[in-house]
Amino acid sequence: MQGDTTASDRPCDPRCFLNSAGGQDEGNTGQGAVDFPVAVVLPAAGCGERMGLTTPKQFCTFLNRPLISYTIESFEKISWIKTIVVVVAKESHELMLHIVKTFRHTKVKVVEGGTSRHRSIFNGLQVLTESTEGSSLPRPKVVIIHDAVRPFVEEDFLLKITLAAKEQGAVGAIRPLVSTVIATTSESYLDHSLERAKYRASEMPQGFLFDIIHQAYQLCSEFDFEFGTECLHLALQYSGTNAKLIEGPPTLWKVTYKRDLAAAESVIKETLSLSACLISGTMAETVELASKVQKNLAAHDMAVDVFSCAKEYKELLLSKTRNFIQITVGGGRLSDIAELIKLLEETNHALLYPVVIIWVHLYMSEEQSHRQKPDELTPIMDLAVKAKQGNILLYGIQVIHSKVPELWEKSAERLSELTAALIRDRNPAFTGQLLQA
Amino acid sequence: MQGDTTASDRPCDPRCFLNSAGGQDEGNTGQGAVDFPVAVVLPAAGCGERMGLTTPKQFCTFLNRPLISYTIESFEKISWIKTIVVVVAKESHELMLHIVKTFRHTKVKVVEGGTSRHRSIFNGLQVLTESTEGSSLPRPKVVIIHDAVRPFVEEDFLLKITLAAKEQGAVGAIRPLVSTVIATTSESYLDHSLERAKYRASEMPQGFLFDIIHQAYQLCSEFDFEFGTECLHLALQYSGTNAKLIEGPPTLWKVTYKRDLAAAESVIKETLSLSACLISGTMAETVELASKVQKNLAAHDMAVDVFSCAKEYKELLLSKTRNFIQITVGGGRLSDIAELIKLLEETNHALLYPVVIIWVHLYMSEEQSHRQKPDELTPIMDLAVKAKQGNILLYGIQVIHSKVPELWEKSAERLSELTAALIRDRNPAFTGQLLQA
Repeated sequence: MQGDTTASDRPCDPRCFLNSAGGQDEGNTGQGAVDFPVAVVLPAAGCGERMGLTTPKQFCTFLNRPLISYTIESFEKISWIKTIVVVVAKESHELMLHIVKTFRHTKVKVVEGGTSRHRSIFNGLQVLTESTEGSSLPRPKVVIIHDAVRPFVEEDFLLKITLAAKEQGAVGAIRPLVSTVIATTSESYLDHSLERAKYRASEMPQGFLFDIIHQAYQLCSEFDFEFGTECLHLALQYSGTNAKLIEGPPTLWKVTYKRDLAAAESVIKETLSLSACLISGTMAETVELASKVQKNLAAHDMAVDVFSCAKEYKELLLSKTRNFIQITVGGGRLSDIAELIKLLEETNHALLYPVVIIWVHLYMSEEQSHRQKPDELTPIMDLAVKAKQGNILLYGIQVIHSKVPELWEKSAERLSELTAALIRDRNPAFTGQLLQA
Repeated sequence: MQGDTTASDRPCDPRCFLNSAGGQDEGNTGQGAVDFPVAVVLPAAGCGERMGLTTPKQFCTFLNRPLISYTIESFEKISWIKTIVVVVAKESHELMLHIVKTFRHTKVKVVEGGTSRHRSIFNGLQVLTESTEGSSLPRPKVVIIHDAVRPFVEEDFLLKITLAAKEQGAVGAIRPLVSTVIATTSESYLDHSLERAKYRASEMPQGFLFDIIHQAYQLCSEFDFEFGTECLHLALQYSGTNAKLIEGPPTLWKVTYKRDLAAAESVIKETLSLSACLISGTMAETVELASKVQKNLAAHDMAVDVFSCAKEYKELLLSKTRNFIQITVGGGRLSDIAELIKLLEETNHALLYPVVIIWVHLYMSEEQSHRQKPDELTPIMDLAVKAKQGNILLYGIQVIHSKVPELWEKSAERLSELTAALIRDRNPAFTGQLLQA
């Protein structure tokens, strides 16, 4: 995807983060190529005043998780990255430790930052030199510096940066300029505009041989610490290392404004909605309904795997998706759903991303459907309230089996539409509701 | 807001677009200051390949309306802007005419574009010179050139651009650089980085005395037409006019990637969710519930005006919001809701933005609530299906009045949470559902 300015801003492999629950390492693309220690420094001490928000943007939350945890996850799931130093403002230290604990980040060290971005990065690097003394962490060969607010960085690009850093000493991500850059006169008139082909936007991540960037920071001036903008420059000026530039994918974008949080949430939600598992049971009508739903959801870009029974496919189910659809006849047995919830809780499947369960009640006749009166909703609502505490979103949908083929088809379509909307939105407000298809 | 880089990316006055339904002119800030004809050219012939979408981004739809219609609306509601020339690719001509008709844009002329952005702008300008012959449109004194994919441009900034264009001949919007800009060597190494303070990103809108920009395009070369990036440059080179630069607000941002569509949708949804009208009826319990909901929704940043009856406040209701909450006892009368829908349809209130109606059924006892069986949902579902065709989203919520104060309070909270979520999401998939608070 690199080097292609027409590329989409979606992750290369949209399922790349689906399997990273519970702190398991999944990334191994670079496992062979990277046989030296690599650490990451994430400066996150900024106050995010551009957002128009009181919370610094790296701590803004969507889908129950702060932005910085998504960024950490992008690095943590890569097996050849061993340490992630997160540098935060003093007032955010406790919050950051809480985030690390809540989302079970295992590779993170939290450090307090300085009064400028460069001082914060230097603090982060210092911790990595200290780690030689009495710690089991090796001093890194290569260090990657990234922004806490660019959550969608991917392993293949980090591998490029890491290998180039080892080779060249310093490397930075660049992107084509989005707008024309113009020089202004002191009276705010157009002076000249830059030839776009010759210039690039400098982005993150950047990679360095640890000793090169560490030396640069040790030698640089107070002015650099306060007003410098580019680590690449410090490497050149104080370590004599000319940085290689590599064009990165659009997924490197930075969450800057409040609207960008909505954009980030939409990227995650879209990716989470690419697949689902449907447990159909074995009755002819439920199997038929499952098949219709599978077909309809394909039109919503959702790949649905159908299983007759949840129990036999536990591992498979969990590895594939965070969306589950269970079809039962009538009210079904609450215990089946409770068991699925228990399995999801035991495997920490909803630790990083909310899991959706849609419980479909198929009534074989219109009359039968009357049995489910509003007060009988209490059990599903109670179960949903409990499940929501564990980041599991349980919704119910009633479907009536009509003997008229057109009506039956229409019900299946309504069911599919509701299912797609519930999975796509992941709205906690609607959990425990019993919708009508 | 201009000149403040810490400003939010939300519209200055978030209600600014709420009252612009049905082609009425609302903008009049500049009415006195602008006593000369002003036209707009919106080049929209691009293919949007950066989106990762097959549809050009200006025609991508959210909340039932293509992006370009939002941009057109931003200009159309300003009384001192008389003509909007939209330049589209030949293959989009029919689509654009359809959009103009569907959303009743009254100031738009659709023109076919050329093979480059500059040729398209020139085509747009040419139409404005032709309009002197036999047409009622005066040749504009000032022309504003804007991007079709920057929908959130606001009147106060357009007024600045227009007045400066009249005064200076040429003026462009600028923004601070987001990233450091670096010059690269031919071997992709860092050459140098630019001093951020001296440079700016050139954005849209730009404004010109019509004769200056028209002359520039008449004189410019084939090379300019094909490869030039800046209208400001053409004005300097061929009309000797040095452009004034004015810093614009963050709301000038450009929808570039697919994620930006989600961001744009979230900006609109947030703005639409700032207010609601609640029709409480006159019974003590419904009035009490209304008061609780009003208080709870204030915590969701939603200002709720409570009225006892819809009929008496028609005009007021419509001028204030696109969200309506009607509380009735039990199933209430379908005819009340049908009447509200009819009023909204007659006044075109849902032409540009979806209107939400939440029909709250208050049951005075748990027993009474049993009366509403699933098959009795059919009327609300039928009404909702019909309303949806008119861009009106009807949802139902059942609440049971408990004599236990804690339970009653909890129901009101659930009702408020569901209401906030329904209004915020405006999800057409859930219309006609009867949720349980």
